Order: sequence, then structure tokens, then C-alpha cells
Amino acid sequence: MNLELALRMCEAAVKQAGREGALISVAVVDAGGHLVAFQRMDGAEIAGPVLAPGKAYTAVAHRMSTADLAPLVVPGGELYGLAGDRYVCFGGGIPLSEPGKDHRVVGAVGVSGGTVAQDVACAEIATALWEGA
Amino acid sequence: MNLELALRMCEAAVKQAGREGALISVAVVDAGGHLVAFQRMDGAEIAGPVLAPGKAYTAVAHRMSTADLAPLVVPGGELYGLAGDRYVCFGGGIPLSEPGKDHRVVGAVGVSGGTVAQDVACAEIATALWEGA
Amino acid sequence: MNLELALRMCEAAVKQAGREGALISVAVVDAGGHLVAFQRMDGAEIAGPVLAPGKAYTAVAHRMSTADLAPLVVPGGELYGLAGDRYVCFGGGIPLSEPGKDHRVVGAVGVSGGTVAQDVACAEIATALWEGA
Amino acid sequence: MNLELALRMCEAAVKQAGREGALISVAVVDAGGHLVAFQRMDGAEIAGPVLAPGKAYTAVAHRMSTADLAPLVVPGGELYGLAGDRYVCFGGGIPLSEPGKDHRVVGAVGVSGGTVAQDVACAEIATALWEGA
Repeated sequence: MNLELALRMCEAAVKQAGREGALISVAVVDAGGHLVAFQRMDGAEIAGPVLAPGKAYTAVAHRMSTADLAPLVVPGGELYGLAGDRYVCFGGGIPLSEPGKDHRVVGAVGVSGGTVAQDVACAEIATALWEGA
Repeated sequence: MNLELALRMCEAAVKQAGREGALISVAVVDAGGHLVAFQRMDGAEIAGPVLAPGKAYTAVAHRMSTADLAPLVVPGGELYGLAGDRYVCFGGGIPLSEPGKDHRVVGAVGVSGGTVAQDVACAEIATALWEGA
Repeated sequence: MNLELALRMCEAAVKQAGREGALISVAVVDAGGHLVAFQRMDGAEIAGPVLAPGKAYTAVAHRMSTADLAPLVVPGGELYGLAGDRYVCFGGGIPLSEPGKDHRVVGAVGVSGGTVAQDVACAEIATALWEGA
Repeated sequence: MNLELALRMCEAAVKQAGREGALISVAVVDAGGHLVAFQRMDGAEIAGPVLAPGKAYTAVAHRMSTADLAPLVVPGGELYGLAGDRYVCFGGGIPLSEPGKDHRVVGAVGVSGGTVAQDVACAEIATALWEGA
């Protein structure tokens, strides 16, 4: 992960949010789950600075999108009872894998503020930019 | 619990993970739920340092395997609403009892990083080593 | 505070860090102390995502620069004993006041990663940009 | 950082503690501050699982030994008021740099349980092993 690309991913997510009519926060973290870049749109909720980095951290920590994690943590699900003060387990967090090199996860993007579908759409746009880089 | 045995339990869990094709973290805690030994395999997810000790702590705290605890914490279950920032309530944590002496719990092993079934298999191998000691 | 200006402040701080030969993280928060924008330079320490937002939060919370706060929190100082898990009480955080309107604090910038003097210089550049806006 | 080397570092620290007549905990973390290996000697205090990883995290986060950080955080020191729930700012944590490659910090070792001098001695032995690897 590097700042220049992280910034472009944030911008792409914010632009997509504009198209969706959503007000979001977006976070990009490195392989250790530590923040590299963050942007909150004007008027977006104050939960964003907690939830967007939380989704990104969760996606790195479990190497799966938080949308895929969501059904596993419901009552009776395989990971119900997952705990940790940085976990956010619904859609909007997507891990970023190094191309080629056995898909090592090297970061993640997390989006929060819209509906879950909007958050996912914004995170996917940012991810596409990563994959094209 | 002692360090020498805890290390052998960690090694046994890591070896089993190799057989399972899983990348895990393994933690052994004492009767107070405090870490004695921890090992994270190369390439295992960064959630392991939170979840493996969490499962081991939970197994000591409730004197039951986290797999047995899982159905009790679902909505309507006997322990629904269980809270605490170190609880992890799905399979992979197993308490260790003193043989003979009324089965006093003196520690636990916790494994995280594979599927729940893999985590449990790795924790059971470590537990067997404890019981044979 | 708004995202467009926050981004320009971050860029200005990063540019100044380049001139200083420092690797920094920079955070801009709103009147509620909540993150609006954050950037961590390539190679900057992982403490940045904790300390830069912490300094910015502290500057908003006390409506003074963290450099001015520093002498007040030493033993015997007026605010000795100040506690809170988001406080960072040394130079690098500067509050941003609304011009004219009785200087209401509407946000802050926080910088971390260089020496304290470098952090302050980077935060001041960002603040100047705010004041000129 | 890798598990095999981390384990050897832990063993070296424990062996040194034996020579010092100290009972310690030792932690090795990766570049993100996340635990790779941990060992607590029989009879070592229960604070070790918090303090040894804390010192290692702090050494990574600030890229300096916690012994060097200690004088900076005293009242009036440059970093007095440093906050964060994982910081431990006295001797016993040492960062590990990649040789050659501009000394990028790729992990750290943290030791706790003896006197500060003993903790430092144990951490240095482990660090020497890293540097010789």
C-alpha cells in the first residue's frame, strides 16, 4: 500500500458515493490494519471515522470482505461470538491482495455512511482501482 | 501450566495445522486466563493475536470449550448477552483440567486462523498432549 | 471544516514534511473532534494513525495547541492529571478558529512522525492555509 | 519476521533471564505491531502478557528502543503526554531493522518481568540473534 494509491482509492469511493447520492467515509489501511488514508464527505455521519477504518481492519484481519463475513457472525453462524473492539461485520470492507504473489493481503478499503449496498458499491470502485494499478 | 508444556502444545497445534493445510495462531493460557505461550505461523492472519488468546481466555473463564459455549450465546440461549472484550464464542478454545483432583481447570488452549473445524482439530491435538503429560 | 479544505491542509503538511526531511501522518478533525481527512506518508511510523488524530482531538477538546497544553500537564501544572485515551499532550496539534465570529473552534489539525519541532512546522503550514481560506 | 526466528529470539531471552536470575515474559511482534511469538517463564508475573507485547508494540510504533523513549516522556520531556492504550515507555522494548534496506523496522522484541536492566539485557540478547540472522 502507498499513500498516492490510497488517496486515489478514497477519491474514487467518494466520487461513486456522489453518483449513489450517499454521504460516506472511506478508509484505506495497510497489511497491519493501520490507517494510510481517510476521507469523510461533508455532511457524512460522525460514525464514519470509527466504522470505515473498522471495516477495513476487519477485512485485513480475516482476509475476506465484511459482506462475506456478515452471514458467518449471525446467531448459529460459524463465527457468531466474534469479538474485538475494532470489528465491524457488515458489508463495506474489502481486502486488497497482491497480484500474483499468492494473493497475500496487503491492505483493505472500508466504506461507511450509506446503505450497506451503497457502501459496498463505493468500496468495490476503490478496489477496482487497486486491481488495475 | 508451565512454559515447557505450553510450548510443546503450541508446536503440536502448529504441526496439526500443517497437516490440515491451515495457517493458525495458537495460545496457551494459565488458570488466570493469562498468556503463557503464543505462536503465529508465517502467513497467518493478524486477527490471530486477538482471537487465539481470546478463545483460550473464554474457555478458562467458563470452564467449557468455546464450541460448547457457542449454542448457549445465541438469542434465547442461556447465556445470550454474554459480554466482555476478551470473549470469543465459537470453536477453537478448550479448557485444560487437572487430572484426578476434581478436574480443576488450570489453563486452556485457543486456536484461530483456519476454519472452525480446523481450529478445533488443532486445539484437540494440543489438549491430548496435555492429557497425556 | 469541509473535506476539500481538509485535503488541501493534509497535502500542505505532507509537502512541508518533505522539505523538513520528515515522514509524517496528518489528521484534520471537525468541531466534534471527529476525523475528516487523514494521510500517512509512505514509510511513516504506525504510531501516526493514533497520535495525529489524538493531537487534533486534544487541540479541539481544549481549544489550544498541544504545544501550549504541554507545560500545563506536568506535575504541579494546572491540568496535571488530565486523562483520556485520546489525549496527546505535546506539540503538533493546532486548533482552527472561525475568523471573526468570536473565534469559535471549528476543527483542528494534528501532525505526528517527525521531531516535535517538525510536527509543529507541518501543522502550522496547514493552519496557515486554513486561515488564508 | 518469521515464527522460526521469533521462537529462537524468545528462547535466547529466556535463557538470558535464567543467567540474570530473573523471571520474564518475552514477546516478538511484526512490522504492524502484531504478536508473532510469546513466552512467559514459570513463575513470571501476570503483567508480562500485557507489558512485553506493549513494549514491543511501542518499539515498532516509534522506531526506537523503549529505553531511549523513557527520558522523552518524563514531565517536561519532548514526548510527555504520549498516550495510547498499548504504550509501555520504559526499557525492555527494542525495534528490529532490516539490514541494508534503509533500516526499515520490521518488528520488535519486548521483555518484562525483571528489573529494567535485566529486561533490557534479555531483549538485547534476542536482538543480537536477529542481527546475526
